[in-house]
Amino acid sequence: MLKKKNKKIFEINGVSLSSVHSGMYRKKRLDLSIMCINKNSVVSGVFTKNKAKSSTIIISQENLKKMMPKYIIVNSGNANAGTGSDGYKDIMTYSNALANKAKCSTDQILIFSTGVIGERIKVNNIIKAIPKLLSNLKGDKWEDFSKSILTTDTNNKIVSKNLKIKGKQVKITGVSKGSGMIQPNMATMLSFVATDIRIKKTTLSKILKKVTDSSYNMISVDGETSTNDASLLVATCENNVDYDKLSFKDQNIFYNTLEQVYIDLAKEIIKDGEGATKFITININNASSQKESKNIAMSIANSPLVKTALFAEDPNWGRILSAVGNAETKLKDLTKIKISLGKFLVFKNNKIYKNYIEKNCKKYLKNKNISINIDCANGKYNSTAWTTDLSYEYIKINADYRT
Amino acid sequence: MLKKKNKKIFEINGVSLSSVHSGMYRKKRLDLSIMCINKNSVVSGVFTKNKAKSSTIIISQENLKKMMPKYIIVNSGNANAGTGSDGYKDIMTYSNALANKAKCSTDQILIFSTGVIGERIKVNNIIKAIPKLLSNLKGDKWEDFSKSILTTDTNNKIVSKNLKIKGKQVKITGVSKGSGMIQPNMATMLSFVATDIRIKKTTLSKILKKVTDSSYNMISVDGETSTNDASLLVATCENNVDYDKLSFKDQNIFYNTLEQVYIDLAKEIIKDGEGATKFITININNASSQKESKNIAMSIANSPLVKTALFAEDPNWGRILSAVGNAETKLKDLTKIKISLGKFLVFKNNKIYKNYIEKNCKKYLKNKNISINIDCANGKYNSTAWTTDLSYEYIKINADYRT
Repeated sequence: MLKKKNKKIFEINGVSLSSVHSGMYRKKRLDLSIMCINKNSVVSGVFTKNKAKSSTIIISQENLKKMMPKYIIVNSGNANAGTGSDGYKDIMTYSNALANKAKCSTDQILIFSTGVIGERIKVNNIIKAIPKLLSNLKGDKWEDFSKSILTTDTNNKIVSKNLKIKGKQVKITGVSKGSGMIQPNMATMLSFVATDIRIKKTTLSKILKKVTDSSYNMISVDGETSTNDASLLVATCENNVDYDKLSFKDQNIFYNTLEQVYIDLAKEIIKDGEGATKFITININNASSQKESKNIAMSIANSPLVKTALFAEDPNWGRILSAVGNAETKLKDLTKIKISLGKFLVFKNNKIYKNYIEKNCKKYLKNKNISINIDCANGKYNSTAWTTDLSYEYIKINADYRT
Repeated sequence: MLKKKNKKIFEINGVSLSSVHSGMYRKKRLDLSIMCINKNSVVSGVFTKNKAKSSTIIISQENLKKMMPKYIIVNSGNANAGTGSDGYKDIMTYSNALANKAKCSTDQILIFSTGVIGERIKVNNIIKAIPKLLSNLKGDKWEDFSKSILTTDTNNKIVSKNLKIKGKQVKITGVSKGSGMIQPNMATMLSFVATDIRIKKTTLSKILKKVTDSSYNMISVDGETSTNDASLLVATCENNVDYDKLSFKDQNIFYNTLEQVYIDLAKEIIKDGEGATKFITININNASSQKESKNIAMSIANSPLVKTALFAEDPNWGRILSAVGNAETKLKDLTKIKISLGKFLVFKNNKIYKNYIEKNCKKYLKNKNISINIDCANGKYNSTAWTTDLSYEYIKINADYRT
């Protein structure tokens, strides 16, 4: 965990939340939540591409196609994954219990889980908690909600922004969780963002895909895509601002703020990356395509050798060069690229920069926030990715996870 | 480093070797070698696909196309990579010096290097050592040669076999080096194998590609492809056994022995993998294609979460399932796969195996040699990969590399 901030959290009209300790963890901590969303809402989701996906993901994807959801139920402490038909039945049992109590169809319920893979979930604990969850729904419970979804995270992740469009307030509040098993492929471990803007579902889905590409899809702690990744975007349509009828300029104001919420949530995950002692920003400029710039960024972000060197505060730039060389690109060779660490130019004209002074760069690497900047001199596309260093602590956390 | 064996090393007629301490390392250890190969030899090579490749690789690839090599010069302690045109000139300077002394063309010299990226090599140290290297060439110096190419390796890697074809002895001796920055893509860090068989160059190249696919291309320590990977196969043709004229059955006898040499050398690299405390064999069976079986094997071999769990001797099979789910495959879901740790069936029918007993599996994971076995139930193709666990020591070695 790198740092923590105080933030103002805006309630979103049309969203209420409730969290309890249901006993997924022995320790007394919030571990189960429901979110209730009003009936005019539109909801879009992006989900893991891992083929060992949790039944929660399969059910939620199907339900989202059928109708607009009314409830979202999320637990930590158990991933509901790798448990086959028994696990599927477990989920449907507590989804049914919620549907009965809340007087809705199970098709209107989305289910998400995060935690250990392969163990059966404590269904009865969930069923027992449902009445309390339903009776305590409130609009100002985002903080509790963000805490209830954590696993190895050391910090809850919550971002809230408001903006004005045509004199009217629009609000966006979102939470995420994730610390290890992080290389989202379409979505991160878990993310729930809500806004009160009015918007069509097709537009919302396009926007979600686009902001995901520049936020969650640009982070990696360990190159692992989880079985339970899910990112949900809710628009409650409670506000009179109708996105689809806005001018291009006003649409951009909303889009840019929403994108910033996602980027901030993604960066919170990296700041809380397992064992992280550094927050590393990788800027790739002047690539021949968006994909090329992303491939180079992620090749560096996932290189254990670059990450151990940064942990050691060692400007071993040869490892960065090698990671660029390993990325899938259209570069024939790397003779034209430039590598900088922060503002320090390190590699140019296919060799170490003539004015490079290692001790200055070593001093720079003592900072918590480090940037690696690559100029590809191969086109006009840019990408930014965020990653952690790789420390003893990452090994410790993941060697100790179940013990 | 996991273990060490005593082996008989066969000389290869037509190959002589010589090694010295040239001062690439301050410590007194062998760090520079030449190999002289007789004029009737045929030589094939496979080389790194990293685009930041060392100039040594570019020069050697070009020379190998022009004519049969007479000398190979190899150093450790410096990768001759990331040094641009200056580095290129350095290499040509000492290649010229060797050509003059040895009375051959620079086109007949292949150059290989391994060590730190981005630093200029000590050209004068090499030039000074050349006379001594040339005057000490002997057929029985494979052991010294194998030691001179090591970097972070803790163990020299040498495999030697002989076989009989039609009553005649055929010999194969090879060395390799590698410990970190290991996910060979066409070749490993450095490998030199020689045989006295008679063979056409086109046949030799085909064979080298094929044995590489089932040996060096199936190992990973850290998913990093080096800038200097090179694997050279020399056939001196000193023997009267002519591979191209052999029966299919006799060709197979030679091929299988050669493949075993490569697999043994690849396994030596994994046993010496940076920080390794386990030697992990990953068997993928019944995949729908060779590529699918390899993709699954390498997804497991490169998963930091699987590797930290194995370091902790924790049968956290959910991470293996997730790694299978992340591989590029034609599997629609993982409902039919089976996962075993050693002989212990863990996952079947899309859930934990009903007779699975965790404590037995935990006991099994205390062994140094662990196998992970996946039955894909999706076809008839099999692959085997080899990898290490991921330990504190890996971080230590790579955080300390230049300090």
